[in-house]
Amino acid sequence: MERKASEILKRPIITLLTDFGLRDPYVACMKGVILSICPEAIIVDLSHEVPKFNIAHAGFLLAQAAGFFPEGTIHVAVVDPGVGTERLAIAVSTRRGVLLGPDNGVLDLAARNLGLKEIYALKNASYFSKRQAPTFAGRDVFAPVAAHIAKGVPLEKLGPRLKGLRELELPKASITSDRISGSVIYIDSFGNLITNIPRKALDGRISIGQRILSRIGSIEETLTYTRSYGFVKRGEPLILIGSAGFLEVAINQGNASERFKASYGTIVEFLLKG
Amino acid sequence: MERKASEILKRPIITLLTDFGLRDPYVACMKGVILSICPEAIIVDLSHEVPKFNIAHAGFLLAQAAGFFPEGTIHVAVVDPGVGTERLAIAVSTRRGVLLGPDNGVLDLAARNLGLKEIYALKNASYFSKRQAPTFAGRDVFAPVAAHIAKGVPLEKLGPRLKGLRELELPKASITSDRISGSVIYIDSFGNLITNIPRKALDGRISIGQRILSRIGSIEETLTYTRSYGFVKRGEPLILIGSAGFLEVAINQGNASERFKASYGTIVEFLLKG
Amino acid sequence: MERKASEILKRPIITLLTDFGLRDPYVACMKGVILSICPEAIIVDLSHEVPKFNIAHAGFLLAQAAGFFPEGTIHVAVVDPGVGTERLAIAVSTRRGVLLGPDNGVLDLAARNLGLKEIYALKNASYFSKRQAPTFAGRDVFAPVAAHIAKGVPLEKLGPRLKGLRELELPKASITSDRISGSVIYIDSFGNLITNIPRKALDGRISIGQRILSRIGSIEETLTYTRSYGFVKRGEPLILIGSAGFLEVAINQGNASERFKASYGTIVEFLLKG
Repeated sequence: MERKASEILKRPIITLLTDFGLRDPYVACMKGVILSICPEAIIVDLSHEVPKFNIAHAGFLLAQAAGFFPEGTIHVAVVDPGVGTERLAIAVSTRRGVLLGPDNGVLDLAARNLGLKEIYALKNASYFSKRQAPTFAGRDVFAPVAAHIAKGVPLEKLGPRLKGLRELELPKASITSDRISGSVIYIDSFGNLITNIPRKALDGRISIGQRILSRIGSIEETLTYTRSYGFVKRGEPLILIGSAGFLEVAINQGNASERFKASYGTIVEFLLKG
Repeated sequence: MERKASEILKRPIITLLTDFGLRDPYVACMKGVILSICPEAIIVDLSHEVPKFNIAHAGFLLAQAAGFFPEGTIHVAVVDPGVGTERLAIAVSTRRGVLLGPDNGVLDLAARNLGLKEIYALKNASYFSKRQAPTFAGRDVFAPVAAHIAKGVPLEKLGPRLKGLRELELPKASITSDRISGSVIYIDSFGNLITNIPRKALDGRISIGQRILSRIGSIEETLTYTRSYGFVKRGEPLILIGSAGFLEVAINQGNASERFKASYGTIVEFLLKG
Repeated sequence: MERKASEILKRPIITLLTDFGLRDPYVACMKGVILSICPEAIIVDLSHEVPKFNIAHAGFLLAQAAGFFPEGTIHVAVVDPGVGTERLAIAVSTRRGVLLGPDNGVLDLAARNLGLKEIYALKNASYFSKRQAPTFAGRDVFAPVAAHIAKGVPLEKLGPRLKGLRELELPKASITSDRISGSVIYIDSFGNLITNIPRKALDGRISIGQRILSRIGSIEETLTYTRSYGFVKRGEPLILIGSAGFLEVAINQGNASERFKASYGTIVEFLLKG
């Protein structure tokens, strides 16, 4: 499907999300490749501090951030433990822009959030860098393809259309009349525990200021449900609906991950009565 | 007061300063919001590695950096432990540009350095994002307001004018004829101890190469006063006037913070005779 | 030598490489200075996470990244333990762009990779900032000079031409018919050990899938030679030709630096028969 002219931005935005860190040349190489092909691109770092090989962290981050960018933005996500093996590299068109990355689940949540349209395998090497290192698809495949898309290359030219993309397996929250249980799916750098419990699980069932008997991992504690962090004393734990729309366990000016010894996958439980 | 046309840059610069870190979607969300409203903006990161909730660190950093940016630059500082509570969000016009942030002291030093003109409370929700999360004013208030200012919206439209802004309490240095004492107000990533003792406290009173009996916290030592780090042997401590114009305790190619077990607020003392 | 008009980019690219980190105002000050002189510049961070004072790390990183940027790019590298002392500040013209930095070896590898043309000492203070701090040449010398070069100032105006630049001493690999030995010259944030053994030392002598008796520091182990990380089991060590074209010791989804207790300079040895 040809992209409409209006979908090709005059100053196209390309975002980058990797687990490369910023102390090595890797991210800079990708930017150099992009600017060599498309000097008018605006390159924005989503993050390069994804925990190494953590596809779920990257997938959640991309899904949170991508919706805030203008239509037509091209998002490149390279958390790619299978680089150079038979895993596919793909481009996904959505209602708001294009996603590029390995087909290992990293694009799944964002594709659903942005409105998935079509998926293509990146097979046409004429849009890759001439010199190919099997260990660095970010630099030699994803960066040049992103830049060519920014210049207006239609996705159909990149390779064959695929029927689906690899899904990201995320645990589901369990919601009953007196109990909500779920798990930690993301821990931010403040130590806030973001769970898989969506806002609607709480709406109309608990009210601001209510105290909720909670179990975070193996620690049982009664937490206050607030609108923001500063409504309890400094150092006091709380629960709230975070900016991503999910139930979050936090400490006012403190670190809930340390306090509750919680990590990715830690089970959380909230009793609505009692 | 209407801004002059010359104060609205063709390619407006918006700087961002937060304690969000770069491993989460938060900074990227702010950039997406800005570029959605003002695609021509040049976004520059001042830093996102401010120690969590450390308003004084952020305030000092902003005051150091802001003066080097072109007139008309819009600086956004979000170190905001009171987010979502009754603390005000403000815009400050200065002789060199605009400052945006919570009214918790973070803007104070920069406002004074840049020449404070007027202060406005951000109350006009028509310049905010439509969807509001009470925990993320950076994304939903400060980013869109910065972008609207970059597009030319005059500050008066943002909300009522205020008479003052919250001050940042910083300890004052004590300077007598034979003794200068102060405290550490900033520690950089090299471990250099930046004190609140200004250049003028030393001018004409000690000379390059002079050895000064010093007390850094509980450690007493005679330090050489130099022009730069490389004038003493590797691993040797020294004092100098740092690039911010304040007396700084450092180690040539070493870490003074570790060596002197110093932290924010550590008392320093220098004897001019003896 | 006058630069050709074609070498002056409409939107000039200036890259920055430092050991300043990103939690302090230092990098932002440099960007402010550049944008004040040359608002049309595209500023790209190569890295600011160079281990403090590690000239070899920075030199390798610059040499890896610079070649991926468009012709005419201006690269600024400030790892500068001798700042403010008698070490020279230099500009180097190459066949692909300009390099700026202290003359301490940091520019050497990149200059050779990009095709060294001419070297100039930065002596003409009319291109420096007016206010000079002896401890911050990045802000007061390199940033403004880079911006002036971006505006079209020819390198001859910056100061006298020099005959050579300080070389970076790197150990050489030793290659015999049955044994290759070298050393670790760069460790990336994945813990991959990048050695000084170039691709051509292996070409035609070992084949994909071959198992090679190896010694990494004091640890002896038989490693598989692969094309990419994912061709061995998770947690298993391997060797491959990395994206920089050198032999690399890695662990699939693990950290070779920790596993082999290796650091910069660690000796590595590979037996081709046996």
